[in-house]
Amino acid sequence: MEHNVNLAGYDVRTDLAVEAHERIRQQAESDIPGVTLETDESEPGIKVTRLHVQSEQAAREIGKLVGHYVTIEVPKLRDNDTKIEEQVMARFSTEFQQFLERMGITAEQKALVVGLGNWNVTPDALGPMVVENLLVTRHLFSLAPDSVEPGYREVSAISPGVLGITGIETSEIVYGVVEQSKPDFVIAIDALASMALHRVNTTIQISDTGIHPGSGVGNKRKALDQATLGVPVIAIGVPTVVFASTIVNDAITYLLGHFAQSLQESKRAFNRLALSNLPERKEPYTEADLPDPESRRTFMGLVGSLNEQEKRQLIHEVLRPLGQDLVVTPKEVDDFMEGISNIIASGLNNALHRAVNRENSGAYTH
Amino acid sequence: MEHNVNLAGYDVRTDLAVEAHERIRQQAESDIPGVTLETDESEPGIKVTRLHVQSEQAAREIGKLVGHYVTIEVPKLRDNDTKIEEQVMARFSTEFQQFLERMGITAEQKALVVGLGNWNVTPDALGPMVVENLLVTRHLFSLAPDSVEPGYREVSAISPGVLGITGIETSEIVYGVVEQSKPDFVIAIDALASMALHRVNTTIQISDTGIHPGSGVGNKRKALDQATLGVPVIAIGVPTVVFASTIVNDAITYLLGHFAQSLQESKRAFNRLALSNLPERKEPYTEADLPDPESRRTFMGLVGSLNEQEKRQLIHEVLRPLGQDLVVTPKEVDDFMEGISNIIASGLNNALHRAVNRENSGAYTH
Amino acid sequence: MEHNVNLAGYDVRTDLAVEAHERIRQQAESDIPGVTLETDESEPGIKVTRLHVQSEQAAREIGKLVGHYVTIEVPKLRDNDTKIEEQVMARFSTEFQQFLERMGITAEQKALVVGLGNWNVTPDALGPMVVENLLVTRHLFSLAPDSVEPGYREVSAISPGVLGITGIETSEIVYGVVEQSKPDFVIAIDALASMALHRVNTTIQISDTGIHPGSGVGNKRKALDQATLGVPVIAIGVPTVVFASTIVNDAITYLLGHFAQSLQESKRAFNRLALSNLPERKEPYTEADLPDPESRRTFMGLVGSLNEQEKRQLIHEVLRPLGQDLVVTPKEVDDFMEGISNIIASGLNNALHRAVNRENSGAYTH
Amino acid sequence: MEHNVNLAGYDVRTDLAVEAHERIRQQAESDIPGVTLETDESEPGIKVTRLHVQSEQAAREIGKLVGHYVTIEVPKLRDNDTKIEEQVMARFSTEFQQFLERMGITAEQKALVVGLGNWNVTPDALGPMVVENLLVTRHLFSLAPDSVEPGYREVSAISPGVLGITGIETSEIVYGVVEQSKPDFVIAIDALASMALHRVNTTIQISDTGIHPGSGVGNKRKALDQATLGVPVIAIGVPTVVFASTIVNDAITYLLGHFAQSLQESKRAFNRLALSNLPERKEPYTEADLPDPESRRTFMGLVGSLNEQEKRQLIHEVLRPLGQDLVVTPKEVDDFMEGISNIIASGLNNALHRAVNRENSGAYTH
Repeated sequence: MEHNVNLAGYDVRTDLAVEAHERIRQQAESDIPGVTLETDESEPGIKVTRLHVQSEQAAREIGKLVGHYVTIEVPKLRDNDTKIEEQVMARFSTEFQQFLERMGITAEQKALVVGLGNWNVTPDALGPMVVENLLVTRHLFSLAPDSVEPGYREVSAISPGVLGITGIETSEIVYGVVEQSKPDFVIAIDALASMALHRVNTTIQISDTGIHPGSGVGNKRKALDQATLGVPVIAIGVPTVVFASTIVNDAITYLLGHFAQSLQESKRAFNRLALSNLPERKEPYTEADLPDPESRRTFMGLVGSLNEQEKRQLIHEVLRPLGQDLVVTPKEVDDFMEGISNIIASGLNNALHRAVNRENSGAYTH
Repeated sequence: MEHNVNLAGYDVRTDLAVEAHERIRQQAESDIPGVTLETDESEPGIKVTRLHVQSEQAAREIGKLVGHYVTIEVPKLRDNDTKIEEQVMARFSTEFQQFLERMGITAEQKALVVGLGNWNVTPDALGPMVVENLLVTRHLFSLAPDSVEPGYREVSAISPGVLGITGIETSEIVYGVVEQSKPDFVIAIDALASMALHRVNTTIQISDTGIHPGSGVGNKRKALDQATLGVPVIAIGVPTVVFASTIVNDAITYLLGHFAQSLQESKRAFNRLALSNLPERKEPYTEADLPDPESRRTFMGLVGSLNEQEKRQLIHEVLRPLGQDLVVTPKEVDDFMEGISNIIASGLNNALHRAVNRENSGAYTH
Repeated sequence: MEHNVNLAGYDVRTDLAVEAHERIRQQAESDIPGVTLETDESEPGIKVTRLHVQSEQAAREIGKLVGHYVTIEVPKLRDNDTKIEEQVMARFSTEFQQFLERMGITAEQKALVVGLGNWNVTPDALGPMVVENLLVTRHLFSLAPDSVEPGYREVSAISPGVLGITGIETSEIVYGVVEQSKPDFVIAIDALASMALHRVNTTIQISDTGIHPGSGVGNKRKALDQATLGVPVIAIGVPTVVFASTIVNDAITYLLGHFAQSLQESKRAFNRLALSNLPERKEPYTEADLPDPESRRTFMGLVGSLNEQEKRQLIHEVLRPLGQDLVVTPKEVDDFMEGISNIIASGLNNALHRAVNRENSGAYTH
Repeated sequence: MEHNVNLAGYDVRTDLAVEAHERIRQQAESDIPGVTLETDESEPGIKVTRLHVQSEQAAREIGKLVGHYVTIEVPKLRDNDTKIEEQVMARFSTEFQQFLERMGITAEQKALVVGLGNWNVTPDALGPMVVENLLVTRHLFSLAPDSVEPGYREVSAISPGVLGITGIETSEIVYGVVEQSKPDFVIAIDALASMALHRVNTTIQISDTGIHPGSGVGNKRKALDQATLGVPVIAIGVPTVVFASTIVNDAITYLLGHFAQSLQESKRAFNRLALSNLPERKEPYTEADLPDPESRRTFMGLVGSLNEQEKRQLIHEVLRPLGQDLVVTPKEVDDFMEGISNIIASGLNNALHRAVNRENSGAYTH
C-alpha cells in the first residue's frame, strides 16, 4: 500500500478501476468509448463487475491502464460471517481461475506469489498474511519431484516488505527473486486505499495490469508488470483503508446536494422579487438585467456549487488538525484482515492447484 | 471501550471531559457555574487541563460526573518520536502522582490495575497492553515479604476481557477480584472514543469518577466506581478511535462556517436590491417589510444554519453505505498503541513505586 | 502450568495419571488394588485409557487423587496433520461428552471455562488459546434470551493469567468470578509437564479431580476443585513440556539397562575366576565365600544399579550448567500449540452445545 | 536454522567454532596447529574468545572453515536481567566494530543485513526479529540524500524466510537482492543449534566465514559467503536450541565418568583377587596372565568406555519414542528471543552508525 497522494492538491489516485470508471461516467453521463463493462449479480449478495479498458485513449480518460479488471463486491463481507466468507472464497476462486484461463495461463505454469505491504501495520498486511497461508510447493518439485502428486502446480511465495523496513525498493527485491527463481507468472497481492467508504473491506479486485505505485518521473522502476518483470503479473487488491479526506469529501458532496433544491427555490424567489419592480416587456428578464452587479455576483457565487479549488480548500481546513494524509480503517481491522486473507489464500490454493478443492482448501490455512 | 451510541439519533456520549466542557461552553458562550478549569502550558508542546466538576447541577449541565479530570494533550504524540514519548511519560507520571496525593492515597496503599478492553482489537487493547508492562508486586509481598526492598507498593493487575469474549460483565469479574484481593484503590485503564479527530492518539485523561459504560436503566451494575467497588477508582483513558460521524460532523460544521460570510453578503445584497424600489422612510426597512412572504421564508431557511434534526439526517445519509456505527482509527494504530501503552505503563510504574524513577522505569516494560 | 518441582531433590510431581500409574505398577509388578484401568484402541492410531482411582488408599499409593482420568494418546498428533487433528477433535469431543454424562451434568447446566497459564510463554498458553476460540454464550442468555436458538448451553470463559503477571493467586481470581457468575460447573484447561518425552504434544487428559498445584502446607487455597469452588471442576490437560531432568533420567535408565547384561556376564566371569582356585565342595560357592570383603563390596556396588540418591546426584551434575529447573519444549511449539488449542476448543464447542457438530465446529475458531 | 543432521548416524555438525575446537582439543589433548585462541575475561561475567583458523589443514581438523570467530559467552544472559542485557549489548557492539575494522570495512561501506530463519518458529526467529529493530537507512540515501545527517551508514535489511514458506532457496533470494541492491558487505544473522545445553541462550558468535548450511554435494549454491555473493559476509549466530540427543549424550558421558573410579577400583580388586592364588614371581602379574580369556575380554569390555558405535546406538534407543531429530528449547524461549534480538539489533545500530551510541541505540528498537 504505497500511495502517491497529494492531499493538499487532492489528486489522490483511486486504486479501484470500478471507482475510476464510476467517477468518469458520472462526469461524462454516458458510456466511455473503449471501455466495456459487464455486471454479474447471479449470486445473491455478490456483485461481480468485469471491466475491460481496451484502448490507450480510454485508459487516459478513465485513469486506469489498458487491461482487464474483475471486481467482486460483497457488502456483507464486513459482517465477519463464516458462511459468507466461504461463499466469497469459492466465488473468488472461480473468478481467478477464469482470469488465468483468459490470460492463457496453463495448469503447469509456475507461479510466484508476492505479498506486498507492511506486516507491522495491520491494514497493510494483506499480502504477507496471504503468503503465510499459501500452499507453497516449488521446493518439493526441486527436492523431491517424485513425491509430488499430480494436480499440484509449482508455487513459490515471498513477502518482500516495504521500503521503510528494508531500505530497498520492493520492486528491486521482486526483480531479484524473479530472476533467480524464474516463475512463469507473478501474482501480486496488496491492500488498497478506496475512494469510497463503503468499499472498504467489502471488495476484491483482480487485474492483469500489474502494480504501478505512483506515476511520476523516475517511478518506472517501481512497477511490477510484464514490462519490468518479463512475465505476466496478476494483481489482487482489497481496499482496507480510506482517506479521511474521502469521508469529508462525501460529506461536502451530500451537503451541497442537500442545499441544491432550497438554493434553486431561493434563487427563483430572489429573481421574482428583484424583477417584480421592473417595467414589463416581451422577453423575460434574466439576472443579467439586474441593476446591481455586486449582488448578482455574490448571489451567483453562493448558488453555484463549490468549484474544485474551493472544495480542496475546505477539505484542507477540516483535516488540518490531523495532518493532511490521515488514512483510517474500521476499528475491527484485525478481525477483517484475518477473514479476508484466509479467503484469498484458500481461494488461490484452490485455483492454483487442481488437487485442492473447496472441501480441503481450508486445511492449508491457519 | 464499550460505547453507548445511538448514531441514528446522534447522541453519542463523549468520553473526554474537556470535550464535553468545550461543547457546552461554546453553546453557553460563558463560564459554567460549578465547573473550574485550569490550563497549564508551562511545558512546550504539552497542554495540561485540570477540570473540576463541583456540583450535581454542573454535572448535569456538562454531562460528566462530579469529580476531577486531568487531561494531557500532546499533538506531537502521534509522531512516534521517542524523545516526546519519554517527555510525556515523565509528565503523565508527575500528574498521576499529584492526582493520587490530592485524593489522599498514600505510598503504602495497595493498587489493583484493571486493563479494560479487548486484546484482539488493536485500538481497544490499551488496558491489556498496559497491564502486560506493569511492575506487579503483590505476590512478592505475600510470598516473600522480606525480599521486597523499600520503595515498592503492593500492586496487582488484571485484564478482565470484554463481554463478547468472556460472556461475563467486566464489572462482575472486577468485583469478584476486588473482593478476593482487597486492594485499597483501583486504577482502570481504557481506550476511549473521541468526538474530535485531533484528540485521537494525542490525549491522556485521568479522572477520579470511575468508569460508567452506558447510563440507561439496568446499567448500574456495570459501573466501576467507589459506590460499586467500595474503594476509590481512578480512570485513565486515551482516545484511540473516532466515530466516522464525527468526521462528517466536522466537515458539515466547517462547510456551514465557510458559507456564513458569503451568505451574509448575499443577504445584504438581497435586501439592498429588494428594498431599493420601496419608498424612502425614516426608520430602516427590515425583511419584515418585504412584500413576498414566500421568498422571505425560503431565503431565511437557507441563511439560517441547519437545525440539529437536519444535521443528523445529513450525517445519517452520508454514512448509510457503511452502517451507522462505523468507528475508525488511523491506519498506524499498531505503532501508536505500542507507544502509548509503554508511556502509561512506565508512568504508572514510576508513580506507584518510589523506588522506580525515570532512569529505570523503562526496564520493566517490553 | 505451575509446577511444584524440587529438582535437586528430584521429587517432581508427575501431572499425568497414566504416568503415575505406570510407574507405580512397574515397581509393584502387579495390579494396584482400588485402581481400575480400561484401555480402548478401537480407533487406529488413538489409545484411550480410562483410569479410576477408587479409594483413598489407592490414591496415596498412586499419588493421584480419587477420581476418574481419561487419557487420549495419539503419537501422530505431533505430525501437524490436519486429518489427524480432525479425528482427534471428534474423539476428544465424544470422550468429553461421555465424561459429562457420567458426572450427571445435563445439557442445561452452565459452564465456566477457565484457561489457565501464561499467554506470554507459548508452551504455557494452552488455556488462554483455547478460551480465545470458544463459543461463549452466557451474555446472549442474559442480554437477549429470546435470540438464543435451542441447542446452545450457557458458556462463559476467562483466562485469569498467572501469579507473576497479576500478583494475585489464580485461584482467588477464579473464586471471585465463580461467586459472581454462578456457573453450574467449571472446566479448567492447563498445559502440563510430562515425565516422559514421548507424551509431550501427543496426549490429552480429562479428569474430574480439579486442579491442585502443589501439595504442601498452605496450598489448600490454590486448588480449583469442588471443595473450594462449590461446583464440579473438570480438568483438561495436555503435556507440552518435559523437564530436562526427565531426558537425563531416561538416558541413565537406558544406560544402566544396557550395562546390565554385560555386568551379569562380567559378574559370572569374576566368580568363575575367583572360585576356580578354591577347593571343591558339594554346595556351590557363592560370593559370600570370597576371601576379600573389599573387592566383593566394590564389585557389588558396581553391578547393582544406582540407588536413588546416586541417581539424583548424577542428574544434578549433568544439569548443573543449566540451572536445575530447566524445562524444555520441542522447537515446533508454536505450530503445535495452534493445532492442539483448536482441537480442544472445537471439541468443547461441539461437546458443550448440541447445536454445534463436527461440520460447523470449526467455524467458531480462528 | 537449517541443520544438516543425521541423528541416527549422529554426525550433527556443531555450529559454534568454540565447541568444535573444544571437542577436538579434548581428543588431541594438545594445541591444534594452525589454530590460535585468545580468551578475554576482563569484564566480569563475560568471556570473549577469539579463534582464528589459519590453514586449510587446521580447518579440516577442527571442522570449521578458515577464518575468524569471536564468541561472547555470558552465562547470566539467560536471567532476563535488563542491566546484563545492556552490558552485553555494549560489548557485542564493541566486538562487532573491531571485527569490521580488522576486516578493513570502512564507515562508508554499505551493509545489507539478512535475517535468516522462520518467523513462525519462535526459537528460529532471531534473524527476522533483529531485522525488525534495525535502523535502516538505504532508502534515505537514495530518496533524500541531503536529509541524511553525517554519522549514518547506508544500511538495508531483509528477512528472506525459509524454504518451507517461500519454496525458494534462501540463498537464491539473497543473491537476487544483493545483485539488485549492491551492498559492500553482508551481515547474516541466524539462530543456531548448540551441542552443549549450557550455551543455549548465553552465547553470541561473530565470524567472517559466511553461512554454509550443509556440506554435501549440490549444497554449494546454498552458501552465503564471499565466493557466492561476491562481497564479504559476516555471520552472527546465537544458539537457541539444543538437540535432545545432546542432553542424552551429556548424561551418558557424565555417567561413564561417574563409573570410571569405581570401575578402576573394581578392576584392581578383580586383579588382586584373581592373582592372589597364582604362584609368586618376581615381575608382577598382569591381566595377560589370567587363565581365562573370556572373563578377561568381558571385564575389559565393561571397564573400557563405550565406543562411538555403542554410544550412538544408546542415544538412538533413548530417543526412539520421540523421533530422532527432536530439537528442544527452554520453555521461556519467547522472553529470551525478545531480549537477545534487542541486544543484537541495538548493538548493530550502534556499531554500524557512528551517530548512534549507547545512549540512543535503544530508541530504534521496539
